[in-house]
Amino acid sequence: MTHHSEGPDLPGIQGGDFLLQPVAGDELMVVRVTGPRGALAPRHSHPHEQMCVIVSGRVRFEIGEQAIETKAGSVVHIPSGVEHAAEALEDTEFFDIFHPVRQDFLEALEQVRATPS
Amino acid sequence: MTHHSEGPDLPGIQGGDFLLQPVAGDELMVVRVTGPRGALAPRHSHPHEQMCVIVSGRVRFEIGEQAIETKAGSVVHIPSGVEHAAEALEDTEFFDIFHPVRQDFLEALEQVRATPS
Repeated sequence: MTHHSEGPDLPGIQGGDFLLQPVAGDELMVVRVTGPRGALAPRHSHPHEQMCVIVSGRVRFEIGEQAIETKAGSVVHIPSGVEHAAEALEDTEFFDIFHPVRQDFLEALEQVRATPS
Repeated sequence: MTHHSEGPDLPGIQGGDFLLQPVAGDELMVVRVTGPRGALAPRHSHPHEQMCVIVSGRVRFEIGEQAIETKAGSVVHIPSGVEHAAEALEDTEFFDIFHPVRQDFLEALEQVRATPS
């Protein structure tokens, strides 16, 4: 299916202190990530390969033993299975990109949709 | 390998009228795409699944039989093998995301690097 989504209007779930708004393809997933200065995603890992594209704000990543400070235009690669964390040094918007699709995010979105507001 | 790149400083190749700056992961590739108003990427297809994230400027996509007008924050999905084209309606920056890696882009980058300036 071809589709087109407007990031700011997408349904979201929490990932640490960040709002995650996933858009699933077939073997690819793009997740719009937004958070205020100080937002943290605690150290974690997953078998999915990940890349991140910073749209605005500075973000500090820990990837394995490496600390990386990023800004608008930065592209980061997090190989499959490598532990990582993120901290927003400023209000930020970035995109996380995954292969394959994060089914756990789709399940969390389903739960959000199923919860009466 | 974990790595971190600054998009604006990456080596580039041409894709239609757009400048393409690829960053390869293992099974994922992110490509920073920039072009002036009027830039065209003619209709083409490839077996790689693609998603696009618009950072700035309006872009018109044709995907199969569908025409989609996008703006900052839009996320677009182009399934494997589906013909598509892009036209910048304003000066634009966006990111193309591919699975698997576009080896043709890496080969074109090698040629750019090998060419004496």
